[in-house]
Amino acid sequence: MVVGRYNRISMTSASNSLREIPPPVTLTTDFGLAGPYVASMKGVILYILPSATIVDVSHAIAPQNIRQAAYVLGAAAPYFPRGTVHVVVVDPGVGSERRPIAVFTRQACFVGPDNGVFSRIYEQEDVAEIRQISNAAYHLPTISSTFHGRDIFAPVAAHIATGVPPSAFGPTISDPVTLHFPSPEQHPDGSICGEIIYADEFGNLISNIPVQGLLDQGSWTIEIAGVSIAALRTMYSDVQPEELVALSSSTGYVEIAKRNGSAARHLDVGAGERLTVRLS
Amino acid sequence: MVVGRYNRISMTSASNSLREIPPPVTLTTDFGLAGPYVASMKGVILYILPSATIVDVSHAIAPQNIRQAAYVLGAAAPYFPRGTVHVVVVDPGVGSERRPIAVFTRQACFVGPDNGVFSRIYEQEDVAEIRQISNAAYHLPTISSTFHGRDIFAPVAAHIATGVPPSAFGPTISDPVTLHFPSPEQHPDGSICGEIIYADEFGNLISNIPVQGLLDQGSWTIEIAGVSIAALRTMYSDVQPEELVALSSSTGYVEIAKRNGSAARHLDVGAGERLTVRLS
Amino acid sequence: MVVGRYNRISMTSASNSLREIPPPVTLTTDFGLAGPYVASMKGVILYILPSATIVDVSHAIAPQNIRQAAYVLGAAAPYFPRGTVHVVVVDPGVGSERRPIAVFTRQACFVGPDNGVFSRIYEQEDVAEIRQISNAAYHLPTISSTFHGRDIFAPVAAHIATGVPPSAFGPTISDPVTLHFPSPEQHPDGSICGEIIYADEFGNLISNIPVQGLLDQGSWTIEIAGVSIAALRTMYSDVQPEELVALSSSTGYVEIAKRNGSAARHLDVGAGERLTVRLS
Repeated sequence: MVVGRYNRISMTSASNSLREIPPPVTLTTDFGLAGPYVASMKGVILYILPSATIVDVSHAIAPQNIRQAAYVLGAAAPYFPRGTVHVVVVDPGVGSERRPIAVFTRQACFVGPDNGVFSRIYEQEDVAEIRQISNAAYHLPTISSTFHGRDIFAPVAAHIATGVPPSAFGPTISDPVTLHFPSPEQHPDGSICGEIIYADEFGNLISNIPVQGLLDQGSWTIEIAGVSIAALRTMYSDVQPEELVALSSSTGYVEIAKRNGSAARHLDVGAGERLTVRLS
Repeated sequence: MVVGRYNRISMTSASNSLREIPPPVTLTTDFGLAGPYVASMKGVILYILPSATIVDVSHAIAPQNIRQAAYVLGAAAPYFPRGTVHVVVVDPGVGSERRPIAVFTRQACFVGPDNGVFSRIYEQEDVAEIRQISNAAYHLPTISSTFHGRDIFAPVAAHIATGVPPSAFGPTISDPVTLHFPSPEQHPDGSICGEIIYADEFGNLISNIPVQGLLDQGSWTIEIAGVSIAALRTMYSDVQPEELVALSSSTGYVEIAKRNGSAARHLDVGAGERLTVRLS
Repeated sequence: MVVGRYNRISMTSASNSLREIPPPVTLTTDFGLAGPYVASMKGVILYILPSATIVDVSHAIAPQNIRQAAYVLGAAAPYFPRGTVHVVVVDPGVGSERRPIAVFTRQACFVGPDNGVFSRIYEQEDVAEIRQISNAAYHLPTISSTFHGRDIFAPVAAHIATGVPPSAFGPTISDPVTLHFPSPEQHPDGSICGEIIYADEFGNLISNIPVQGLLDQGSWTIEIAGVSIAALRTMYSDVQPEELVALSSSTGYVEIAKRNGSAARHLDVGAGERLTVRLS
């Protein structure tokens, strides 16, 4: 994470109010899609910026699972255009003293509660500045104690997408809450120990061990939950139906999957489970 | 509800066809998201109005639950910009004699079956006029007997968003079907009796008792399903995990929630359950 | 299917790069909506075409169910405007030798794996040409082995929507993989034998027997799974709650439904079940 570069890196070119097409605004929440909550946020955004392009990243984050939201946002954000404004509302502390913030990076902007939900962004991107978004001029006139997504984060995101500069929203902060995402460790015998950091809805298990470089070095065995998987493959169809397979996830990390099934259920594990990759 | 003001309040300014950005079109249905139904409606809207901004309010209304659709629409609609066209297709009587209607209010427009699904809108907004949308020129050429969402409501909504005036769609009506949503009652001892009117997908129970004014008057006890909840709080984190909490919903009504859980399941109740709020 | 007409039928007018509003891009996948996968595809599309209108057809296709995806796409596509670009990613063979293709028809364009997922399109539309989309200039710079939706199909679709001509993407092919969708058979006694080809998420069973013409000929009995249904109706409310009903699906085929319930569960059948329609 690189805080304090804001004289060098600026979002103003990306949020130029003269351009015809504003940058997309994305939403990541634990609200589900059945109730009026997500739609209320979209209504507020379109009220402020009628030409907004709004994209759902996920509304199925497990309730209050900040770590999962951080992972999903970190996986999707790099594929969006420069200047995209990403809103995250996974906010167990809503109504308490936790700060509402906007994180401006070289590539994009991130709006939400300061509870660690942007931890992966701090690792992945060059942060230009972080603002506490305390200026009520950019909030809804009435702020509820339970729904800052609609009352604070959505309107601030829309104003950022229209080109309001970062300094308008409030003072900079330099001590954002950051969750620890574990790094893999290489042992003297060449084996690498890591951890599952995300289980998707189909039971695919994505670890924190990068695949890059592994395939050049020879043949690997993957050990997880007392099971040995014989090799790193390149595609699901390299194994038989119902068989476990280790391959590269779509973001470049070792992934454990079960062809036509759920590896999470097969192994009865989820995020946090340790795995070891060793040369066979 | 205020019908018959159409000389004074007009939608024409809101649906001005000269503006560059048409108003959003929202969709609320009980169709789910798996099949081709919702997408067919969106295709029809984009066919008529290629620049349409389409927003999903909910497609997870319980099948044929008109009351739930009325609640969700009523909760989301106030946050959308002036002129928004809201389509609702929760339509157990599709193919029968129930009328297809468009309700034009001072703020927005509502298109769907005349089965009570706009009851909350009649309470919340100033209605300018209600039209029976019988003019086949604005329908698809072939009308199925089971999918008026695609064949009638979607094309009419798109034409409204392009600026076609209300009078083009058909004659006015003055007797729309209206569901009774119960009002809370204040008793001589100061207690207030109300009812749960919506249970969201996480089991939060939203009542019809407004919070405004309550917090100034002292400390309240909330009784529901044989359980007493000690106080009205301002946020979820005011109570311990797994504990029941009464607080203000995001739309300003007494809400019963369970921190990190489902109050609906904990109490085994849903919409229709009575509750009492009394000074302790 | 009519391949090889590309001198006569051309998409160029539909994908004219001079127009202001590009055609919609639709997405049909088996990815679900919880993870970062669908959003990554949308980010890529908006990166290439910032003014893109992206519509979800379905992300709840049963995992790797090519036949179901073919049905849902075939049911929704006819309602979209000319020039729409439909992306389908139900792709059990991702990373293997199966070809990535773009199918240009008189009405629209279809991008995805050559695994039969466009079989209904080949039946329904006039195909102008099919291209193997092998030109890496229109792919992401790095291609994963597990997520061609993001790395190949999304960027190709966005480039098509911006107006890049079909010939730019790769060579034509004339032997696309085609799944057999069974046709109904008329017997000498006038009865018609067909098959359920889609069960929607509510348990409505849609067959391959067209309703057109049936209603003029008299009264019909429908037999399925050992049950006789007395008549072809025009709406759900023609029968009592909990009763089975046969009526016309919204796309014009015999549909078996249960009023306020699931016909699929009631009859314990799904896609592939045979049914017979005979004059009573």
